[in-house]
Amino acid sequence: MSLLLAMTGWHVEDWRQRFQALLPDMPVVTLGEPFDRRAVHYVASWKHPPGSLSGLPNLAAIFSLGAGVDFLFADDRLPEVPIARVVDPDLTTRMSEYVVLHCLSILRQQRRYDRQQPLKNWDDDRHQPAARSVRVGIMGLGELGLEAAEKLKVMGFDVAGWSRSAKSVAGLATFAGAEGMAAFLARTDILVALLPLTEETRGMIDAELLAGLAQDGRLGGPFLINAGRGGLQVETDILGALDAGTLEGAVLDVFETEPLPAESPLWTHPAVTVTPHNAAMSEPEAVAGLISEQIKRLEAGEPLRHVVDPSRGY
Amino acid sequence: MSLLLAMTGWHVEDWRQRFQALLPDMPVVTLGEPFDRRAVHYVASWKHPPGSLSGLPNLAAIFSLGAGVDFLFADDRLPEVPIARVVDPDLTTRMSEYVVLHCLSILRQQRRYDRQQPLKNWDDDRHQPAARSVRVGIMGLGELGLEAAEKLKVMGFDVAGWSRSAKSVAGLATFAGAEGMAAFLARTDILVALLPLTEETRGMIDAELLAGLAQDGRLGGPFLINAGRGGLQVETDILGALDAGTLEGAVLDVFETEPLPAESPLWTHPAVTVTPHNAAMSEPEAVAGLISEQIKRLEAGEPLRHVVDPSRGY
Repeated sequence: MSLLLAMTGWHVEDWRQRFQALLPDMPVVTLGEPFDRRAVHYVASWKHPPGSLSGLPNLAAIFSLGAGVDFLFADDRLPEVPIARVVDPDLTTRMSEYVVLHCLSILRQQRRYDRQQPLKNWDDDRHQPAARSVRVGIMGLGELGLEAAEKLKVMGFDVAGWSRSAKSVAGLATFAGAEGMAAFLARTDILVALLPLTEETRGMIDAELLAGLAQDGRLGGPFLINAGRGGLQVETDILGALDAGTLEGAVLDVFETEPLPAESPLWTHPAVTVTPHNAAMSEPEAVAGLISEQIKRLEAGEPLRHVVDPSRGY
Repeated sequence: MSLLLAMTGWHVEDWRQRFQALLPDMPVVTLGEPFDRRAVHYVASWKHPPGSLSGLPNLAAIFSLGAGVDFLFADDRLPEVPIARVVDPDLTTRMSEYVVLHCLSILRQQRRYDRQQPLKNWDDDRHQPAARSVRVGIMGLGELGLEAAEKLKVMGFDVAGWSRSAKSVAGLATFAGAEGMAAFLARTDILVALLPLTEETRGMIDAELLAGLAQDGRLGGPFLINAGRGGLQVETDILGALDAGTLEGAVLDVFETEPLPAESPLWTHPAVTVTPHNAAMSEPEAVAGLISEQIKRLEAGEPLRHVVDPSRGY
């Protein structure tokens, strides 16, 4: 039996070496070479070419090489086998770092001081709001959202969360579903999007949602941080809200098209911070290790962990 | 009896109104007007003109309007009465925000992405170190240093502290005194200075100290964050270490001369972040409230809190 690596945009040979070192007794094959399709029991994929995983009669499981699995459900010829995603504790920590960094940068107006510095402008501001008077709203209360919420609370922010279905979290104000959205947005000065991309969430950060954010906060207007998925956002609506003044700023790590095309006005908009989809990247060694452990669990007859629910899409 | 407000650079009338509202039965006078020197029982000062507090025969206490008191000891005609500084919990929170913001910004290379953005450069970096592999060293383990250490630990950093005299803190590696300095610096990738300015600490961030920082860390070289006092640092030595490559970057909120003079090379050095001494500013209302409470305590026969030890200078 063998492990098939199916990816685009990444260096497959590096991944083959990592997996082969961790699974010395299992042949590791790649899409770009001849291989015995009947021998493939496992697939590790990152954005494989749609259809390339069909015709694997003995496939037992598909592993996403990242936390996202939306690219898998976009393949209508995906074999009907269990799908597991990577749950990397380091990745959760990295995401919290990104969210706390940018919430603090917004709170402390760091971009303003960055603009002042080359002008040799010593203009302090004696009336910065306290973190406790700034309301952060996290959309998505999975592992990533909950840890970010916890760390933002330690830093003093007034944090609430929204999730698709009702969720009770000790010490966190929570809102749920379509019926809870308006109240959630109305108390949000910094909206942090950490949702998975599904048919329900695609394009949900649109003009209507942005218009619902708090206009009575201490930051001069609401901010958006999207460190989830680019498909969640409608970029023309974000630009429209920024230019209309209903949105004060945006920190975007993900985009409708990645890499962000040079013609996108987001690159040079003065109120937008662009990072190259690196809010939370796992070390390749850690990912290969986590998937190898899963394969060893299956080989030992133990159940697969972190299985995705196809009906929810995450 | 009256309260004398003695300050330079601040709007004394705003402060008079704040104090008068809080102490309606006590005359509040200022240096710029005639007043009865025998009636002055209390002084609230921020950088008063040296000598201006002599000849106050009934003075009972001097309050610094900030956390720093070094300007008081620089006045050799200061009356020998108890001096209290402001210990504002909000100020401690603000300082932690600043320290965590800039440690995260260094960890996540935010300045690099800031430079890339106007160039429309989508260059991610798959090998950012984890916070746990980055060693932060905090010089000064008073209220500010201890809270910053605690929050940096929550964010995952590997934190240690140095203080003048030995201090045992649960969960924190501590070093003390001149004999502990070399080992402290040798394990420090990000040095955070939160020391008071005294005769012992003046100019201590010099070429020799900077040369002792870790050169084997994960950040490409060590970083300095000074959010304490400008007098702690020798700016020509910081610039020398940056240009020699022994220091990778510096985040400075305080300077030898403030406002930072336009001719300082720090303003435009590519590896330096300048902020205008606003890492931790109290709300004026909060400061006036804390000092008014102290005056009420004294009037009620209770002991003064947060008294400065003149022999230590803080």
